[in-house]
Order: sequence, then structure tokens, then C-alpha cells
Amino acid sequence: MKARVKAIYRQLKQPVDAIVLSNSTEPHIDMSFFYATGLTDGLFEGCTAWLFPDGRCEIITSALEEEAAKKSGLPLRVFKNRDERRAAMRGSLRGLRRIGINSSELTQKAFTELKQLLPKGRFIDVSDAIMKARLVKDDSEVDLIRTACSIACRSLEQILPFIRPGRTESEVAAELVYTMQRNGATGAAFRTIVGAGPNSAEPHYTAGPREIRSGDLIVIDFGALYKMYHSDVTRTVVVGKASPEQREMYETVRQAQDAAMKMLRPGIRGKSVDAAARKLIDATKYRGRFIHGLGHSLGLATHDGGGLNSVSDIILKPGMVFTNEPGVYVSGFGGVRIEDDVLITRAGPEVLSTASRDLVTVG
Amino acid sequence: MKARVKAIYRQLKQPVDAIVLSNSTEPHIDMSFFYATGLTDGLFEGCTAWLFPDGRCEIITSALEEEAAKKSGLPLRVFKNRDERRAAMRGSLRGLRRIGINSSELTQKAFTELKQLLPKGRFIDVSDAIMKARLVKDDSEVDLIRTACSIACRSLEQILPFIRPGRTESEVAAELVYTMQRNGATGAAFRTIVGAGPNSAEPHYTAGPREIRSGDLIVIDFGALYKMYHSDVTRTVVVGKASPEQREMYETVRQAQDAAMKMLRPGIRGKSVDAAARKLIDATKYRGRFIHGLGHSLGLATHDGGGLNSVSDIILKPGMVFTNEPGVYVSGFGGVRIEDDVLITRAGPEVLSTASRDLVTVG
Repeated sequence: MKARVKAIYRQLKQPVDAIVLSNSTEPHIDMSFFYATGLTDGLFEGCTAWLFPDGRCEIITSALEEEAAKKSGLPLRVFKNRDERRAAMRGSLRGLRRIGINSSELTQKAFTELKQLLPKGRFIDVSDAIMKARLVKDDSEVDLIRTACSIACRSLEQILPFIRPGRTESEVAAELVYTMQRNGATGAAFRTIVGAGPNSAEPHYTAGPREIRSGDLIVIDFGALYKMYHSDVTRTVVVGKASPEQREMYETVRQAQDAAMKMLRPGIRGKSVDAAARKLIDATKYRGRFIHGLGHSLGLATHDGGGLNSVSDIILKPGMVFTNEPGVYVSGFGGVRIEDDVLITRAGPEVLSTASRDLVTVG
Repeated sequence: MKARVKAIYRQLKQPVDAIVLSNSTEPHIDMSFFYATGLTDGLFEGCTAWLFPDGRCEIITSALEEEAAKKSGLPLRVFKNRDERRAAMRGSLRGLRRIGINSSELTQKAFTELKQLLPKGRFIDVSDAIMKARLVKDDSEVDLIRTACSIACRSLEQILPFIRPGRTESEVAAELVYTMQRNGATGAAFRTIVGAGPNSAEPHYTAGPREIRSGDLIVIDFGALYKMYHSDVTRTVVVGKASPEQREMYETVRQAQDAAMKMLRPGIRGKSVDAAARKLIDATKYRGRFIHGLGHSLGLATHDGGGLNSVSDIILKPGMVFTNEPGVYVSGFGGVRIEDDVLITRAGPEVLSTASRDLVTVG
């Protein structure tokens, strides 16, 4: 993945001799390890990737992951125990003076270890450069996200008949995750949200024993993991006939999403995209009820670096992938969120999540 | 969760005025946040928990998680944006001199932020104390792990008839995760391993498109997540009649697990438990083929602190929960691993994972 390593180095503000990406124990794994190595499977606890200015990348891997690591085609050093691991790390650090670290995905403990191994080293935080490189996806990354989106959308459409009064939120979540896996997903990208009735008004609710009832709004926020890449889609459905109030909420969010969608073009600033949706909602009776940012970058993590929110200074570029997910939440009544995954292209926004955005009736 | 906060403070080697547990973006969440607050749901990105020597605990939470945070019954400060978050953090740091941090679950970036907010503060790594406190589970934690084990074992037994020639590894994994969710799991504790035939010889393989064939050994390593607590169980099954070689491998691992099981008692040192299993395997023709540690602590993470391996100095205490998972791997032929979750009690080991440990024939 020479091009990716070089993309990181191009973003650096000061030169470094090497960049080290160091994984701790799950969940504290640096996802940039997978970006730089191109690996799309394996756990790699305690493993490190070393990136050099000429685009080279080397891996220090545990013997447990040796077979998985070989799939990268990169030079490997293999350790069987803690002592061998430290010796290999020391070997890689030898002769280096300025070492780049990814402070946003490196534990303080792993950082302390690096400093102990090379007391005279100067460690420079290059997390901004890594984030900027990762924001712009290459073709193979877009392909994986596209597949993750396609699996998610197809799976939701397949399980719509399953959603009816008497089913619990948890059952719907389980059915959706299962269907995604049957359709080829590696797993769920994150814990699936199925919030029915008043639970739909909690943006970060997950799913519980509540039974679905006629008249409920149900917010379903879900994504497929496909070879380490994430999709992240939300649809809000209504059980039975939508009330005028529910329809008005839905239409407001839909229009807000449309307004933001038009702004997802190269050269536009993140906060302008957020503002387009927010302005529209705040001009209605739902003023102030859009209580989160409009979206976020998507890739090797669900929240993959930059956000589209009211303070976002990101300038959109071709190859970036963002969620566009306005919502409106009325405590005690319910909520609506519509979320799509959008690739920025020279020609404008390309929506990767193809499920219908109309208000769908279930039950 | 006063008792848990006090348990952490009892393990400290030097006094601190407060301990801060600071979450970054997923996956970089400090699981000790959930230990200290007792919360068993929610994401809590960017949120912090503040623990005081008298056992008090306070939360600084995003407005998105306010409803979830309220379930803790703890004092909350709520932020709506980055500026409010920083102001709340600064408020909590005011007047503190010595602040404990959990370096093994804190990103270097979050640590840098803390130092910037309180330049004169002395930050002391208390990760060892937190790990030691978390190693000994209280009754409510044991109950959650017990439920996670029971869901996992019941689910495996239910899907055994599903495992037959022609099914793919991925299909079996999907079916198992689905069944766990239908049986009440919050989700899978980690990515399910279903390694059939030669893939069973890769300890950290996950699951792929390989079709199951008659004569395969299949290593199934799986766990249920139940309200944030993990189970972690492995069973090796054989498709059709086991060959003498397969039976010998299985019996060797089974005996090694039994030998280690007898050692899982208060007062025993971790490396002695590992040695009991390793000595047995290394006295057979499978010498050197047990290529990983015997086990690890289990709780809010699958790898939850201390390990049982050849260098482990942990002294077992009542309330600790460990996996006991010897294995033997022969490249190109296949592997066997048997893994159970064991609670250390005054009366000896209590196996929480109740699925049969006999070699099960499927297909």
C-alpha cells in the first residue's frame, strides 16, 4: 500500500524518519494499521506497522497472526513472546531520530513504551496527517464501502416484512444483523439501533425488549462491516398509517437531508453542509430539535475522522465519504433520522446507500 | 458503584486527588468507564468519569447520551458541544494536583488534552490499580458473565444440527451470532471464529467462504456480549467419524485443560496454571504445538487485563474469571482448542460455560 503510505507523508507538516502505528489490546487497535498495510482481516493485538518516507511498510507481528499478516505481501518480523516483541521493536527504532506517532489511536501506555525503547527519540504527533490521508478514499476503499452499503440496504429491504407489532426491537436488530451476515457482511459495523415509539427520540439508544406497536415511529440505524470497512445507514419507518405529525416530521428531515445533499461537492466547507440542513429544520416548528452534527467521515471506523458539524472546517474533496444524517427528536413522542452514505465526486454527490428514502410503512 | 471506585483506590501505590477515565472516539473507549459508573449500555464517546477517594463518581456526558447516563444515578454534567465539554473538563480538574489516569485505555491525544487543561497537574498512571480492581469481579459482574456464558453455550447446542457438509464457515458464524442474539445477547463479544479443516490450525482465523467437508475438524471460538460483559468459549467439533489422529489430538487438549482446571484455585500463580497444561502437551507428540497462552481474564473486555501464560505472575483470587483454553495446531492438518470460562472461588474452580466438553460429532 505504497500509495497510502505516501499519501500520509504528503500531509506531514514536518519530516519524520518513520511513522509507527502500534496496536494495544482490543478495543485499542489503531485502525490506520489496516489502512497502511492493506490488511482486511485479523486482530493484530500488540503488533506494529512501520511506514517510511519512500512508501515502504513493514510489520512486526505476533506468530498468532503470521498467516494473516502474510496476506499483505509486506516484510514481516515475527515475535513469539514479549521479549522477542521488544527486541523487534528496538531493532526497528534503531537509528531513528524523529518518529511519527498516531496519538489519536495510540494508548498512553504504548507511547510510554516507545519512549522507553528509544529515550533519545523525538516523537511527533502525525495524527492529523493520517486522518487527512484516510479521509480521501482510494478506489479499492470506495469499492469496499460500496459493498458494505449495498449489503446493508439490501438486508433492510429484505427484513421489512419482519417488522410488525409484537416483535421486539432486539428481535428486529438480530434479524437485520443476521441478514447482513447472510448477505456477505463480516459482521455489523456497530451496535444496531432499533428505537421504537418514544425510544426513537434517543439518538444513541440501541435496542431493547420493547415490543413494536401500531403507530410507532421506528428509527433503524445500522451498518454492515465488509472486510473492515463500514457502512452506516438510518431509515425511519412507521407502523401502520403515519399521523399528520409524523409525516410532517419526516418531510422536514427529508428536505433537510436534500438541502445538505446538494452541498456535498468538492470545495465546500463542512460547516456549510451542516448549516444547510440545520437552517431548514430551524425554520420549522422543530427548531433546536436537530441535536447532533449532520454527519461524519466513514471508512475503517464508523466515526472515521472528520465530522460535518457546525464547527467543521473540512473542505470537501473527491474521494471523501460522509454520512448525511439529519434528525429531529421530540422527547416522549418520537424521532426521525434519515442517513445516507455519500461519496464526493467531481460530478457531485454519489449516494452509496441505495435503500428508498420515502417514508416506508410496515406492519 | 462506590465499592468499585474504592476497590481501585485500595490498589493505588501512591495517593491521587482524583482519577479521570476519558473516552475518545470508538473503538478507543475506556471500558473502565463502565466499570466505575456501572453503566451497561451506551457509547459515551468523548465522555469522562471522575472517581474520588471517598468512592464518589461523577460523569461528564454528551447531551446525546444524557438519557443513558441518567441510568447510573450519578451526578452528571452535560455538554452540547466541544467548548462546553472543555469547560466542564476544566471545572472538574480545578484544584486537583495529582490526577490518576488509565494509560492502557487512554489515547495519547486525550492525555495531551488533559495536560493542556491543567498544565501544572501531575498525572499518575494508575492503570495497574484499575486492572487489579477489575480482575476481581463483584457479584453483579459475575451474574452478567454467567448469563453471557449461558447464552453462548445454549446457542451453540441449538445450532449443532445446522453444521453440516456444504455449509460455509461464515454461515455457521452468522447462525451462531443470530441465535445468541435471539437468546438475549446484546451481540457477539468478538468476531466469531469458525475455522474448518486446515483453517482450524490458525488460532486467530475468523470465518470465510470455505465449505464444511466430511472429516473436518472445526474450531468454533465465540462469545456472547451481555450488557457489556463478555463470554468466550471454544468448542472443536468433527464432521462425521473422527480419525484416530483427530481423537488423539482432542484427548491431549482435553487432558491439558483438565490439568489446568485443577490449578484454578486461590493462591496459585498464573504461570503455574499455564505450565500444567503445557507440560502435559509437551510430553506428547504435540510438543511445541500449543503456541499461545493458556488463557486470559474475562469481563468488560474479552482480553480483560491479566493473562495466564508462561510469564504470568498473577496470583489467583476468589472472584477472578479466566478462560482456560489450551490448543494444539498442526499446519495443513487442523487444530483443536477447548475453551471454558472459569470463576475462581474459595472452593475451587467453577466452570461458567456449561456446554459439553466431549468431542461432538456433527453432520
